[in-house]
Amino acid sequence: MTTHTADALVEGLVAICRAPYVLTAEADLASYLEDWRGRYHGRAIAVVKPADTAEVAAVVRFCADHGLAVVPQGGNTGMCGAATPDSSGQSVVLRLDRLNRVRAISPLANSITVEAGCILQTIQQAAEGVDRLFPLSLGAEGSCQIGGNIATNAGGTAVLRYGNMRELVLGLEVVLPDGTVLDRLHRLRKNSSGYDLKQLFIGAEGTLGIVTAASLKLFPRPRVSALAMVALPEIEAALTLLERLRGQVGDRLASLEAMSRGQIEVIAEHVPDVSIPFALDAPWFLLIELTDTLAGTDLRTPLEEALGAAFEEGLVVDAVLAESEAQAHALWKIRHSVSEGSKRAGYVVSHDSAVPLENQALFARNTERRILEEVPDARVVMHGHIGDGNIHVLAILDAARFPDAAAAAPVVARINAVVDDETTALGGVISAEHGIGISNRGRLGRVSDPVDLALMRRIKDLLDPAGLMNPGKVLPPTA
Amino acid sequence: MTTHTADALVEGLVAICRAPYVLTAEADLASYLEDWRGRYHGRAIAVVKPADTAEVAAVVRFCADHGLAVVPQGGNTGMCGAATPDSSGQSVVLRLDRLNRVRAISPLANSITVEAGCILQTIQQAAEGVDRLFPLSLGAEGSCQIGGNIATNAGGTAVLRYGNMRELVLGLEVVLPDGTVLDRLHRLRKNSSGYDLKQLFIGAEGTLGIVTAASLKLFPRPRVSALAMVALPEIEAALTLLERLRGQVGDRLASLEAMSRGQIEVIAEHVPDVSIPFALDAPWFLLIELTDTLAGTDLRTPLEEALGAAFEEGLVVDAVLAESEAQAHALWKIRHSVSEGSKRAGYVVSHDSAVPLENQALFARNTERRILEEVPDARVVMHGHIGDGNIHVLAILDAARFPDAAAAAPVVARINAVVDDETTALGGVISAEHGIGISNRGRLGRVSDPVDLALMRRIKDLLDPAGLMNPGKVLPPTA
Repeated sequence: MTTHTADALVEGLVAICRAPYVLTAEADLASYLEDWRGRYHGRAIAVVKPADTAEVAAVVRFCADHGLAVVPQGGNTGMCGAATPDSSGQSVVLRLDRLNRVRAISPLANSITVEAGCILQTIQQAAEGVDRLFPLSLGAEGSCQIGGNIATNAGGTAVLRYGNMRELVLGLEVVLPDGTVLDRLHRLRKNSSGYDLKQLFIGAEGTLGIVTAASLKLFPRPRVSALAMVALPEIEAALTLLERLRGQVGDRLASLEAMSRGQIEVIAEHVPDVSIPFALDAPWFLLIELTDTLAGTDLRTPLEEALGAAFEEGLVVDAVLAESEAQAHALWKIRHSVSEGSKRAGYVVSHDSAVPLENQALFARNTERRILEEVPDARVVMHGHIGDGNIHVLAILDAARFPDAAAAAPVVARINAVVDDETTALGGVISAEHGIGISNRGRLGRVSDPVDLALMRRIKDLLDPAGLMNPGKVLPPTA
Repeated sequence: MTTHTADALVEGLVAICRAPYVLTAEADLASYLEDWRGRYHGRAIAVVKPADTAEVAAVVRFCADHGLAVVPQGGNTGMCGAATPDSSGQSVVLRLDRLNRVRAISPLANSITVEAGCILQTIQQAAEGVDRLFPLSLGAEGSCQIGGNIATNAGGTAVLRYGNMRELVLGLEVVLPDGTVLDRLHRLRKNSSGYDLKQLFIGAEGTLGIVTAASLKLFPRPRVSALAMVALPEIEAALTLLERLRGQVGDRLASLEAMSRGQIEVIAEHVPDVSIPFALDAPWFLLIELTDTLAGTDLRTPLEEALGAAFEEGLVVDAVLAESEAQAHALWKIRHSVSEGSKRAGYVVSHDSAVPLENQALFARNTERRILEEVPDARVVMHGHIGDGNIHVLAILDAARFPDAAAAAPVVARINAVVDDETTALGGVISAEHGIGISNRGRLGRVSDPVDLALMRRIKDLLDPAGLMNPGKVLPPTA
């Protein structure tokens, strides 16, 4: 393609979005062409920032007409490179920033309708403004966009109680690969009127179309909460405790976040403003949060009773209950520092497996052992959402030996293989909440059932026969 | 097709399922060739009862090879004729009865894996057996099969608290139209590993494949409950009350079932063993149930307080609180008698619309008025799941004037049209929980967005290019 043609293409995009919203200068593009961890780099003809759904549709149609790839990008906070264009230079990065309106909010119907570029935190705050809760909560909530959360079927720390992103979606508006707009933006709780097409686009990472707006569930706001950090004699205790707690307090159990001792040590070493108000003399720690919507409900007593009984049974060896908001905040701060602490500790090879709950302890033990067999000097630490079967296993490598992705690639491949094999053997999947993107597509191909994979490819070919929607993502490379 | 060929086809089916499980005699077929209300009638080469997934797959492959339609049938309790074959006589009715095992149950993981032919009540009881709740609950629970519940994305009286069928499914096993088995039967709470293919088959009424097994969510069993029946000055009060109650008691609000005065009058007139322990001097009545998993929780006080406040505000004009299990049972009995009572009252034209909650009162008022404009002597009564936006509007016609479906057809079409127009104008869908089947496909075509419909047809053509999976269901007839 000649420079002249590239200019003509840019002109076409400018005609749709206007010049200030079509970036082409190298310096302007840079931040959009790599992921936040700096692991993936690509090239693009332009970065465009359409104003609304109609402009998104027009850009997509224009790209379809001219054989250009479209790479939708939200907050660019993803873990798997799904928002980074490939190196062909034949892509248009489509930013959703300007589609950032809350279109409607109904406390009666417990629903909110938002555009794809809304920051997650903005939605949480809009819900609070009408005395409701939008429960999705994750590390990047201050900068990630809801369109990206939907495209990756995001998880986070509230899944145990409120479900993952898919379960929070009532309706979607989607620009299909030919530029048609699919309007499934209703706010209905129940619908058995034909195929539920919106499901196709949740978790598809922009490979089947671009989510431009969504109707989401809201919930009553919790009025009271109680928080404890407990030390466990072994990981199995976490699961027994989960069962007991859920049987007793039901949905008051809002979060159950596990960290291995090694994970907390990494935080204590590398994140200066975190204090650990308990001895690190147990192999696992568990953050337990109960909440209730009924003001005045005593949550502390059932929590103390449950932990007291667990202590007598030997399921818990130590416990700290938060006595104030400040203490609760300090305990949560430990959990929220896992990414920062781990990143500073070395080159992180992180995993996102989910396995059936009853296999989770075995999964944690086996992966640690097998990673250490492969890389004896790796630091293997774990944290995650134990009630969801989703523990993030991290192998932290010496940054001096593995300064970047290229240097780490061979050992990363070996570590991934043992984790993926263990995941699959125990009936799990390799991505619970981060998605597939670029980084995991080969791995997905390796562990997937061929029937599954074949049907995924047929769906992709049906919706996007030219293969222009976020190419090179999700679907494994063909041999 | 000659008799000889039909014999050969039956022989092929017998080779797969064995003779006792291939029915061909007219008397043996009769009950499978019409729906339970006697509104739809079809013909079939045979009714087969395969023993397991492998036999289902073999039957489907055999039918694909021989150009035969496959009509999956569960308990045959559906509302829309989705399990009745067409009149071509080129169909095989595939009963799932013998796939009736509970394959696994895990109280720790709160999951159960069942085969498609399991009766809903059997699954509820299996869950109870390990001290858990499987919440799906509906009138036909003693005879409907879970495969049919999944195929129609069933609703019922617990959706407000636990979600509809789709939200209760963790994994599926599906026989695709070419006889391939898609194994997505994991029990994972979180999965962002590629497209969520199982969603395609939930609510597709067997038009894209046959569900043979499912992994489902279980929940902690409620230990305490409180129940009230309240009289409302107008339907709007139900929605305000919903908002108040949810804000106060959160997920303790388990059911909120509305009935119009006319609906209860129909029950009082036609169901002898129901007693109505309150005066029918209000236009709407509401059954409110709170439950909690924490034994010893006082639900009565918050319910009384909420109703007391509502009474002072004029949102409630009368209330009966159940003082015993027997009284609670008697109040639920009224709600559970709506089908029986209505059926005895005349020829019932029933609707299953869902609209956004804030439009529900307007929907109820407008549909009643417009039906009466069309058919002044119709008896218009309503009941349903007001917290879900799903009110069943029933027009009960004089059985003497409208003895059967054929006689009623013209007036039914007019009534449906006004209800469907009102539903669509208020942002709703024509089927919330009953499905589309035969009866609603023309209506779906009339009200659907063409983009939506086109994508549904493309999905259908992709998965079932020969059109042999439950033909004539869900998708509107092409012009």
